[in-house]
Amino acid sequence: MEFHGVFSVLPTPFNYKGELDIPSLRRVVDLFVAAGVNGVTALGVTSEVSRLNESERMLVIDTVVAQVNERIPVIVGATADGTTLCLEYSRAVRSAGAAAVMVSPPRMPKLNSEAVFRHFSELASGLDMPIVVQDFPPLSGYSMEPVLLARIAREIPSARAIKLEDPPTPLKTANILANSKGLPVQVLGGLGGVFLLEELMAGAAGVMTGFAVPEILVKVVRLFKSGQLTAASDLFYTYVPLMRFEFQEGIGLAIRKEILHRRGAIEVPHVRQPGGGLDSGTSSALDHLLNWPRLKQELPWN
Amino acid sequence: MEFHGVFSVLPTPFNYKGELDIPSLRRVVDLFVAAGVNGVTALGVTSEVSRLNESERMLVIDTVVAQVNERIPVIVGATADGTTLCLEYSRAVRSAGAAAVMVSPPRMPKLNSEAVFRHFSELASGLDMPIVVQDFPPLSGYSMEPVLLARIAREIPSARAIKLEDPPTPLKTANILANSKGLPVQVLGGLGGVFLLEELMAGAAGVMTGFAVPEILVKVVRLFKSGQLTAASDLFYTYVPLMRFEFQEGIGLAIRKEILHRRGAIEVPHVRQPGGGLDSGTSSALDHLLNWPRLKQELPWN
Amino acid sequence: MEFHGVFSVLPTPFNYKGELDIPSLRRVVDLFVAAGVNGVTALGVTSEVSRLNESERMLVIDTVVAQVNERIPVIVGATADGTTLCLEYSRAVRSAGAAAVMVSPPRMPKLNSEAVFRHFSELASGLDMPIVVQDFPPLSGYSMEPVLLARIAREIPSARAIKLEDPPTPLKTANILANSKGLPVQVLGGLGGVFLLEELMAGAAGVMTGFAVPEILVKVVRLFKSGQLTAASDLFYTYVPLMRFEFQEGIGLAIRKEILHRRGAIEVPHVRQPGGGLDSGTSSALDHLLNWPRLKQELPWN
Amino acid sequence: MEFHGVFSVLPTPFNYKGELDIPSLRRVVDLFVAAGVNGVTALGVTSEVSRLNESERMLVIDTVVAQVNERIPVIVGATADGTTLCLEYSRAVRSAGAAAVMVSPPRMPKLNSEAVFRHFSELASGLDMPIVVQDFPPLSGYSMEPVLLARIAREIPSARAIKLEDPPTPLKTANILANSKGLPVQVLGGLGGVFLLEELMAGAAGVMTGFAVPEILVKVVRLFKSGQLTAASDLFYTYVPLMRFEFQEGIGLAIRKEILHRRGAIEVPHVRQPGGGLDSGTSSALDHLLNWPRLKQELPWN
Repeated sequence: MEFHGVFSVLPTPFNYKGELDIPSLRRVVDLFVAAGVNGVTALGVTSEVSRLNESERMLVIDTVVAQVNERIPVIVGATADGTTLCLEYSRAVRSAGAAAVMVSPPRMPKLNSEAVFRHFSELASGLDMPIVVQDFPPLSGYSMEPVLLARIAREIPSARAIKLEDPPTPLKTANILANSKGLPVQVLGGLGGVFLLEELMAGAAGVMTGFAVPEILVKVVRLFKSGQLTAASDLFYTYVPLMRFEFQEGIGLAIRKEILHRRGAIEVPHVRQPGGGLDSGTSSALDHLLNWPRLKQELPWN
Repeated sequence: MEFHGVFSVLPTPFNYKGELDIPSLRRVVDLFVAAGVNGVTALGVTSEVSRLNESERMLVIDTVVAQVNERIPVIVGATADGTTLCLEYSRAVRSAGAAAVMVSPPRMPKLNSEAVFRHFSELASGLDMPIVVQDFPPLSGYSMEPVLLARIAREIPSARAIKLEDPPTPLKTANILANSKGLPVQVLGGLGGVFLLEELMAGAAGVMTGFAVPEILVKVVRLFKSGQLTAASDLFYTYVPLMRFEFQEGIGLAIRKEILHRRGAIEVPHVRQPGGGLDSGTSSALDHLLNWPRLKQELPWN
Repeated sequence: MEFHGVFSVLPTPFNYKGELDIPSLRRVVDLFVAAGVNGVTALGVTSEVSRLNESERMLVIDTVVAQVNERIPVIVGATADGTTLCLEYSRAVRSAGAAAVMVSPPRMPKLNSEAVFRHFSELASGLDMPIVVQDFPPLSGYSMEPVLLARIAREIPSARAIKLEDPPTPLKTANILANSKGLPVQVLGGLGGVFLLEELMAGAAGVMTGFAVPEILVKVVRLFKSGQLTAASDLFYTYVPLMRFEFQEGIGLAIRKEILHRRGAIEVPHVRQPGGGLDSGTSSALDHLLNWPRLKQELPWN
Repeated sequence: MEFHGVFSVLPTPFNYKGELDIPSLRRVVDLFVAAGVNGVTALGVTSEVSRLNESERMLVIDTVVAQVNERIPVIVGATADGTTLCLEYSRAVRSAGAAAVMVSPPRMPKLNSEAVFRHFSELASGLDMPIVVQDFPPLSGYSMEPVLLARIAREIPSARAIKLEDPPTPLKTANILANSKGLPVQVLGGLGGVFLLEELMAGAAGVMTGFAVPEILVKVVRLFKSGQLTAASDLFYTYVPLMRFEFQEGIGLAIRKEILHRRGAIEVPHVRQPGGGLDSGTSSALDHLLNWPRLKQELPWN
C-alpha cells in the first residue's frame, strides 16, 4: 500500500446525550471522500478514541468501512499499552476490512527504544497488514528519534509509513529520510496541516490529519506534486490561519466538530467530557476568521 | 464504607502464552484474604489493567468477586479518559458486586483542577457507590494539590477515600487532612508500602498497594493501631528493604509476580509486553534479600 | 507602569566565535524602537539567557538600557530557581535602570501553587518595581491556573502583568480576566504572535514576543485598538504563516536570528550550542515564504 | 582518575538569613573526610547549586578545595544549559584545583541523543580533566539510554564515569556495562544510596550521593569489595529505612541538613526557598527512626 496524498482523520460524532451519532459519521465520511482525500483514518486521537468503549470502537470501524465502500483505503488506530492488546485490536481492524492500522508506541514507565522496536516488531510478525507508525510524543510520552524510526523501517517492511507529529516536522521529515536512504519510507505530516507545505518540501509523501476542510489539503498536495509550487503556496499560506486556529491545544477538537457542524456533516458538535466544548470567545474568533475575504472565497462551501 | 487497614492490589496472572490465568488469580485472592487484609483491589496499575481488553476486565472482576465471596470488600479500578466511559466501567463494577471503585483523573492535554473536580462530581452523581480517588501523577499526568482533594471530599460525599501515591506521601497526608478538617477523609498510602509507618504517623487510615507479602502490612497496621509503635516500627523497618526493592520503577511488577510465584500462588510470573520480565541480576538480588536472616525469620512462609 | 501594546523580546547576538556581539545588539534595539514597539525585553528565553554567564547578562542589560536611552521602557528577565537569587537578579535589573522584571516560577520538584505564590510575594516585598509574571509551562515545568494568576494579581499589586504562553492563550486570557474582575490585570500574549488577534479579541492588553518583524505586531495592535478590525485581521492573517514558521520548536530562535541577519541588524545568525543552527531545508522554506507576494508587499524592508 | 568507592555530595549550608555559612561547609567537609569517603562532590543538585549565584559557586569551590587540602579528590558540578557556559564553568573548576567535573545534559526543548553526545564531546575537547556524566532525567529532562552512555564512554575517553540516577539503577548499571564491554567504564550509583548493595552486585564501582551518614556507605562498600557480602548486606539493609526516608522528593534536602545539623556539622538546617524546610511531622518521624535500636547502635555518633 502506498501512503501518498491526504489522509483525513475522522472525528467521532455524538448526539446531544453523548451517544454515538452514526448518521453524522456517515456524512463526514462522504464529505471527506467527496473532498478527494486519498484515505480516511478512524479511531485516531482526534476521534476521541480513548473515550470510546470497545463495542463503540467496532461500530465506528464497521460504519466507516461500510460507508467508504472501497472508494478509498481506510486506516484505523489500534494503539494499546500492551503488545498483545495492540495486536488483538489490529486483527479486529483487519477483519473489518480496513487497509492499514495506525499505532503509537505503548505508554509505559521507563520505555526505551529497544522496547518500542520490539513492540512494532511483534505486532508486524502477527499481522498481515501495513502499519502506520505514529510519532506523537504527547500521546505515548516517548519521542522516537529519526534513527529509531529508520531502524523500524529497515527491519520491519510492513512499518514504513510514519505519521509525524513531533515538531519541527519539516526538519524531522528530512532527518528521517536521510537516515533511511534507499528505503521506501513514507512520511505523512500531521499537526493539523499547519506545516504541510514545508513538510512536502522536505520530502513528505503527504499528510494525515483531521483538518475540517480537507479539500484545501487535497488541492495543496496536488498543486505541489504537479510542480505548481506558487499556486500551492498561495493556497496553503491563505489557509494557515485557519489550520493554526483549529489546531489549538485542548479545544482543537471542539473547533473541528463545530466547522463540520457548520458544513452540515455533524448534527451536534458535542465533545465527550472532560474534553472541552466551544466557548463563546473561541466561537466568535472562528466566525471572524471564516469571514476573512481571502479565506472565504476559497472555502469549498461558499 | 470505611477504608481502614490494608487493601491489597491484585496482580493479574497470565499463563506462559500471556492468557489470563484464572486459577492463579483465585489463589492470590485466597492468599491475600488469608493474610488478613481488609480488602482487595482489582484492575489497578499493578494489575496491568491497561493491557487487558474489556472482556478480560470483566472476567477478572467476576472471578475476584466470586472468589472473595463477601469475606472482605472488593474495590475495582475504573479509571478512563472519558467521564462517560468511567461511569460505564464503574456501573459494571457495581453490578458485578464490588464495594467501591478506584478512579484516577482522566488523561487529557490541558487538564485543570476544575475539570478534575467536574469529572469526579459527574461520576458520583451517576453512581451509588464509594469512590476511591487515586492520586498517582505518573498515571494521569496531573498532580492534585491538597486543596483540590479537600474540595472533592467536601463537595462529593462518596469520594472521601484517597489512595495517595504522590510523594512525599506522609507530608501530603498531613496536608490533605489539615485542609479537610472536620470531614471524614480517609487517606490510604501506596508506593509499595515503602512509607507505611510514616503515613500512619501522619494520620493515614491505612494503605492500598500491591506488596506481595501483605501479612507484614497487616501486622504493621494492627500493631500501630493498637498503640504498639515500637513493635510496629521494628517489623516495618525490617521489611523496608524488601518493599523498596519490589517497588522499582519499570520492573516492580515482575518482582511482585515472582514473589507470588515463589509463594505458590501464581503459576507463571509472566508480565505482558512491553512490561519487562525479571532479569537474572534482579532475580539474584531478590534471592539474596529474601535470605537476609532478619527478614527471613519474619517471612510468613518460613 | 502600563503594559499595553507590543513588547519585543530581544535575541542575544553572538559573533562567529560565540562571543557577545554588542554592536549587533544595539542595532536590534534600534530596529525594534524604530518599529514602534512599546517596550523591549532583554534576557528572555529567546535571548538564550540560560546560556549566558552573569557578567554577560549584566553587559546585555547595560547595553540595552543605554541604547534604548529612555525612548521606551526596558523589561528584563530575572527568573531563577531560588527566591533569593531571583530577588538579587531583579535588584540588579532595577539598579541598571530597567522599568520592570519578568519572572517565571522557579523550577523545583513538587512545586505547588502555594510555593509559587510565596515566591512572587517575597520577590515583590523586596523589590520596588513592576513584575511581569511569565506563564510558560515548558520553562518552569508548572502550569499556573487562572485562579492562581488572579490570586497573585489580587494580593500582589506589583505583579499584575502576565506574559501568557500556555495555549490556548485566547481562552486562557478570557479565563484569567474573568477570575480577576475589577483588578487592572494586563495580559500580554506570547507564542511568537501566532494568536495575537484572538488574544486581543479576548481582552489581552498586547503581546510580548520575539517575532523578528515587530512592525507588523505594532500595526496589528494599533489597527485593532483604533477599531479597524478588518484591516487588523487582514494584516494579521497574512502574517500568520511567517509567525508560525518562525515559532517552530527547537529551531525558532535560529530562524529569528536569520531574519534579523537578513534585515541587517545581526551580523552573524549564530545560536549558542546545543541550540540548533539553520539547516538548509528550513532556510529554503524561509526564502520561499518571504517571497510570497502577499507577505512580501507588506515586509517593512521591501 | 579512578572512580571507586564512596563520593559524598556536599550540601551547601546557609545561616538563618540564607547566606553562605562557610564554617559549616568546612565542618561538613571534615566530617565526610573523617568518614573515610573516597571523594567529595560540590555543587550538585543536593548542594542547591541552582540557587547560588556565580560568586557563591566559586566561594564554595575554593572553600571545599582548601578544606579538603588534597586529602581526597574533589569533584565539582558544572552543568549548564549552554555548551560554552558548561566549558567555562568546568575550566573554573579545574583552575580551582578540583579533580573532576560532573555534568548533566543541557536542558533544551527537542534535545536528542546526537546533541547530548556533541555537548559532552565538545566539553571534553576543551577540557583536560575527567568528566562524570550525570544521568538524572528529572534534572535534564532527558533520559540517556545505555547505548548512548556506552557511545560517550567509547568515543570520549575522559567521560567514562557515570553517576547513575535513572531507576531501576541496578538493572541500568548492568545494561550500561553490557553495552560498553571492554571499556573501563565506572558506574556510580546515586538515589541517596537506596540501591547501593544491588548496584554493587550489578557491577557498580561505587556510589555518589549526599546521604548524611556516609560512614555507612563506606563500610558497605568496603565490606562488599572485600568479599564480606553477608556483613555488607546486614549493614546496608539495616540502613535502608533511613536512606529511603532521607531521599524523599521535595523535602530530602531538608532532612539531610537536619541530620548534619544534629551531627554538629551544620549550624542551621536552612534550605533556600522555594525549597521546603522540615515540617514537624517529618521531624518526628525522623526522631523516631533514628531511635530504632538496630539502626541506633550503628550510628557513628552513638
